[in-house]
Amino acid sequence: MKKDHGLLIVLSGPAGVGKGTVCNALRDVDDSIAYSVSATTRAPREGEKDGVNYFFKSESTFKEMIANDRLLEWAKYVNHYYGTPLQYVHDTVGSGTDIILEIEVQGAAKVKERYPEGIFIFLAPPNLAELRKRIEERGTENLDLINERMTVAKEEIEMMAQYDYVVENDQVEKAVQRIQSIVEAEHCRKDRVIEHYRQLAEVK
Amino acid sequence: MKKDHGLLIVLSGPAGVGKGTVCNALRDVDDSIAYSVSATTRAPREGEKDGVNYFFKSESTFKEMIANDRLLEWAKYVNHYYGTPLQYVHDTVGSGTDIILEIEVQGAAKVKERYPEGIFIFLAPPNLAELRKRIEERGTENLDLINERMTVAKEEIEMMAQYDYVVENDQVEKAVQRIQSIVEAEHCRKDRVIEHYRQLAEVK
Repeated sequence: MKKDHGLLIVLSGPAGVGKGTVCNALRDVDDSIAYSVSATTRAPREGEKDGVNYFFKSESTFKEMIANDRLLEWAKYVNHYYGTPLQYVHDTVGSGTDIILEIEVQGAAKVKERYPEGIFIFLAPPNLAELRKRIEERGTENLDLINERMTVAKEEIEMMAQYDYVVENDQVEKAVQRIQSIVEAEHCRKDRVIEHYRQLAEVK
Repeated sequence: MKKDHGLLIVLSGPAGVGKGTVCNALRDVDDSIAYSVSATTRAPREGEKDGVNYFFKSESTFKEMIANDRLLEWAKYVNHYYGTPLQYVHDTVGSGTDIILEIEVQGAAKVKERYPEGIFIFLAPPNLAELRKRIEERGTENLDLINERMTVAKEEIEMMAQYDYVVENDQVEKAVQRIQSIVEAEHCRKDRVIEHYRQLAEVK
């Protein structure tokens, strides 16, 4: 059956849960899904290509994109702007290709406001003890900071309520498999395909 | 993550679409899903075992099951009763195992009334021309009957509206894969798992 329209898949979850690792692993095994390319005002690092790693923009151009509502979401970190160009997402799904956007929870919440028809997947740690362990293994935080992050994690679990799916990142390969299953299942949802069949039923 | 509760998966679709073939192929590759066993008043055929192929019941027992609301759905074909025992479905999902029920569309509609939390999958022919071909290949119907079935098929496509998913049976292996993806995705649905995470977040 023809895929008429691609899906925007938003992969988010708490800091340290492994969003980047899972997204890269998915990229390695599945070339049917496109990956959202962010716009940024920071300078390209060695080897980074415009349109591949990022869309590199001047600050004035970026601010213009904000003003003209051409970003699905944006944020400023350490004096640089980062954002998701709306046009790139629209062009990709319009051509029938699914696109995945890996983003922190605050960004995902903004995307949901602008693009509620997206598929929102929350990547979750196997359990909070495991999350604590992962954060500790980063080795750069003190205990206060860890406890603070645990509190944030609890808040973020409450953010699950805004998502369609929760994928446990107990093993990267399993998490990737679950995301692929979600994408395949979403393409089978009745609401997405019934019109296609109604048209077929009218063929003489 | 612990599976707390199994899912009832209802696989239905038009006559001749290949429900039985797909269900058997799923059975061959996936032993994590249980298969619903029907009750019947017909006599066991050679090799058929009670509780495996069917639950064999006397007509009086079957009527008692109807009267006591112990069937998810039932129907009478050629002087014999067939039905889906509710207890078997409840016991299976209660033990955390998914169960699949392969059934014609009228039966599926009855199941939906009684068990709306089931996952309803409509198995669809690749297109209506293909359905016509499949029906013709059975070789036992005349043209009037084929046209009649096409009309029924169109009606049945309108029944898709009652389902959660539509799986195209273009290739048996692909249809099986899609069903497995749907089951995996459904287990990741936020509404099914958020309470589990809320409990974990309370762990000291």
